[in-house]
Amino acid sequence: MTSADLVGPLRVGLLGHGTVGSAFATLIEQRAAAIERLTGRRLEPSGVLTRSRGDFEEILAGSDVIVELLGGIEPARSYVLAAIEAGKHVVTANKQLLCQHGEQLWAAAAERGVALGFEAAVAGVVPVVRVLRSSLAGAHVERVHGIVNGTTNFILSEMTRTGANYDEALAQAQELGYAEADPTEDVGGKDAAAKMAILARLAFGAPVRLEDVRYEGIEGITVDDIEYARELGLGLKLLGTAERVDGGIAVSVHPAFLYAGHPLASVSGPFNAVTIESEAITEVTLSGPGAGGPQTASAVLGDVVAVIQGSVAALAPADPLPIVSDTVSAFYLHLEVVDRPRVLAAVAQVLGDHEVSVKSVVQKGLGDNARLVMVVHPVLSSRFERAREQIARLEEMRSSPRAIRVLEEEFT
Amino acid sequence: MTSADLVGPLRVGLLGHGTVGSAFATLIEQRAAAIERLTGRRLEPSGVLTRSRGDFEEILAGSDVIVELLGGIEPARSYVLAAIEAGKHVVTANKQLLCQHGEQLWAAAAERGVALGFEAAVAGVVPVVRVLRSSLAGAHVERVHGIVNGTTNFILSEMTRTGANYDEALAQAQELGYAEADPTEDVGGKDAAAKMAILARLAFGAPVRLEDVRYEGIEGITVDDIEYARELGLGLKLLGTAERVDGGIAVSVHPAFLYAGHPLASVSGPFNAVTIESEAITEVTLSGPGAGGPQTASAVLGDVVAVIQGSVAALAPADPLPIVSDTVSAFYLHLEVVDRPRVLAAVAQVLGDHEVSVKSVVQKGLGDNARLVMVVHPVLSSRFERAREQIARLEEMRSSPRAIRVLEEEFT
Repeated sequence: MTSADLVGPLRVGLLGHGTVGSAFATLIEQRAAAIERLTGRRLEPSGVLTRSRGDFEEILAGSDVIVELLGGIEPARSYVLAAIEAGKHVVTANKQLLCQHGEQLWAAAAERGVALGFEAAVAGVVPVVRVLRSSLAGAHVERVHGIVNGTTNFILSEMTRTGANYDEALAQAQELGYAEADPTEDVGGKDAAAKMAILARLAFGAPVRLEDVRYEGIEGITVDDIEYARELGLGLKLLGTAERVDGGIAVSVHPAFLYAGHPLASVSGPFNAVTIESEAITEVTLSGPGAGGPQTASAVLGDVVAVIQGSVAALAPADPLPIVSDTVSAFYLHLEVVDRPRVLAAVAQVLGDHEVSVKSVVQKGLGDNARLVMVVHPVLSSRFERAREQIARLEEMRSSPRAIRVLEEEFT
Repeated sequence: MTSADLVGPLRVGLLGHGTVGSAFATLIEQRAAAIERLTGRRLEPSGVLTRSRGDFEEILAGSDVIVELLGGIEPARSYVLAAIEAGKHVVTANKQLLCQHGEQLWAAAAERGVALGFEAAVAGVVPVVRVLRSSLAGAHVERVHGIVNGTTNFILSEMTRTGANYDEALAQAQELGYAEADPTEDVGGKDAAAKMAILARLAFGAPVRLEDVRYEGIEGITVDDIEYARELGLGLKLLGTAERVDGGIAVSVHPAFLYAGHPLASVSGPFNAVTIESEAITEVTLSGPGAGGPQTASAVLGDVVAVIQGSVAALAPADPLPIVSDTVSAFYLHLEVVDRPRVLAAVAQVLGDHEVSVKSVVQKGLGDNARLVMVVHPVLSSRFERAREQIARLEEMRSSPRAIRVLEEEFT
């Protein structure tokens, strides 16, 4: 379809008028003339639905595209489905909706032949959805690594930069508007897990639900861990990983140490970045701001323009693959121990019993501050976990052992 | 258009069977089943044209898509035009063709309503064409910075990594297949200039020809320059820049020092990377392998899949903008001087006469090895150039002054 086929304005109905919604309304106005020059078609706001005003049916009837920026599941899901059923194109930034009801919505859109754009649902303005849906649709993607939550990346960056502890960095993030008053979904990893589920669906063509994603957050990260990263020049990131493993796929979100040369190690502040690996392409990395009203609104607008261009590809039906939850990784292990002979021997004994092989160990501090910082060679997570549980029960432990994954250079 | 609308195989006619062509033929075979699952349509090779075999008219008649991998202007241009006129989709990796005849080809494709994909013409597998054509089509792009030539980036990386001089690093690049036997177009900057012309066309919607791009290569880069970069933690890159300046646009390719935090400073080896800046999106960076048969073939295949998906957007007609050739930049200036009092005063006098303000100056070496390494504050290039010419005529100079642009942090 070329722009010449189209006549009249494209009527855009907006559901939601929060930070992104209002930024989008402003952006449409600013860019209308340029978009008309580019596509031959003018964008025309056809109504706004908020909690207190607007009528959905009326807006739907008067729109060619529905832009859903309500968030949450209902009524967003009903509205999106109703719009698709009515033959309208839809653009949404709603990751929760997609990671829970994506298959139903994608199937409905494909059946009705309408576009369902969702670039803004993952990694803000970083065009990873489009790249996976189209540019790399022909590639056999092996692995996707992503920093897909700007709040946690900002907090970890601040802890590294200033030496602040977790609570201080979180407060700083809240002050600057990078973290919400209730940051649970961000700092606990759930937000990133939802985004990784969507990316895995796009990368592997298999259905992935939020329940399929193993995730942990950054609440337990301490100044000690940050110091370790700094000393060794590692990046400490909340890292999402979606990868093919043994004929299935594994999707997870964990704090992880990245070696200095990794493309994601230098991504700092509220930025997002995604690395896509495939044998034919080696690796492609995309990075940019992960959130923010104007940035997310830009991604939404890009999808609306793609609707005019007819360039939003339909998603093929999902083809299930087994979900693998136990993967191999190297680990850093931080133990607060009583300062007495034979502590190391006791710990080493447990690790040896579980065939966990130690790569390095350093004793830090003395007396009440004695700690063992170890790195173990790649091992199946479940086996490492069992060893960690047993170590936790040793009487020499002053607190619960802390573990963080380590992404090693030789792995990539 | 959804995949359901399409029936039968998509017949792909291939023009050219060199490195990329043969990699593409292999890739089609490997990925045919997956692409059929994804798009509902099977790719079917319908003929290959090489210098010694195949008939263009016959291949054209039996194809739905023509993939042009011949390179050069003729007969590539005639074939591409004939294919478009015949209502066939076209995918090409031919940057020379596009930067010289792009407007004609894009207009013809838009008129006939066929797709013209050219992701592989710029930055290999890095999906910058798609991102500029679609994702950011609604954004007001202010500036594009790019490392778009893998050969030169490999050479500069090797010089930095090993301390090799230019000739040694070039020989190494040739040995590894990263540089051609005749590397002139790569090392002289012309290849990068053609790619920046195409990116500027996409970013600003204005026609840009190769003649509009000011470019210089890396042949003059010395071990001294590399040492300077290393000492200060700067990246030395062959940097393409396309930006809005005073109501017009400026497009150029120059060696440049980048401050350590710049997203392109850490891009090393034969990789390509592009940073796109716009007020609304802040900045987005894309990086990946810039060349190589399988990688470029992957980009070509991505375009072919996009043709099936109907997701290749038509390019709007170009809207001319004035070309600005004189831009503001900071510069590093390297002077081999005779070791005598008042050299610095003489140089400073000339700079002062041209209102070029010195930021730092270091004297290095003694006697026959005396050098002045200076950095000057941002200044209009033409004014700096006049100062440099006058400095070159000072009797204290032992050789021609060398200048390299410096991208400063406060600029971005």
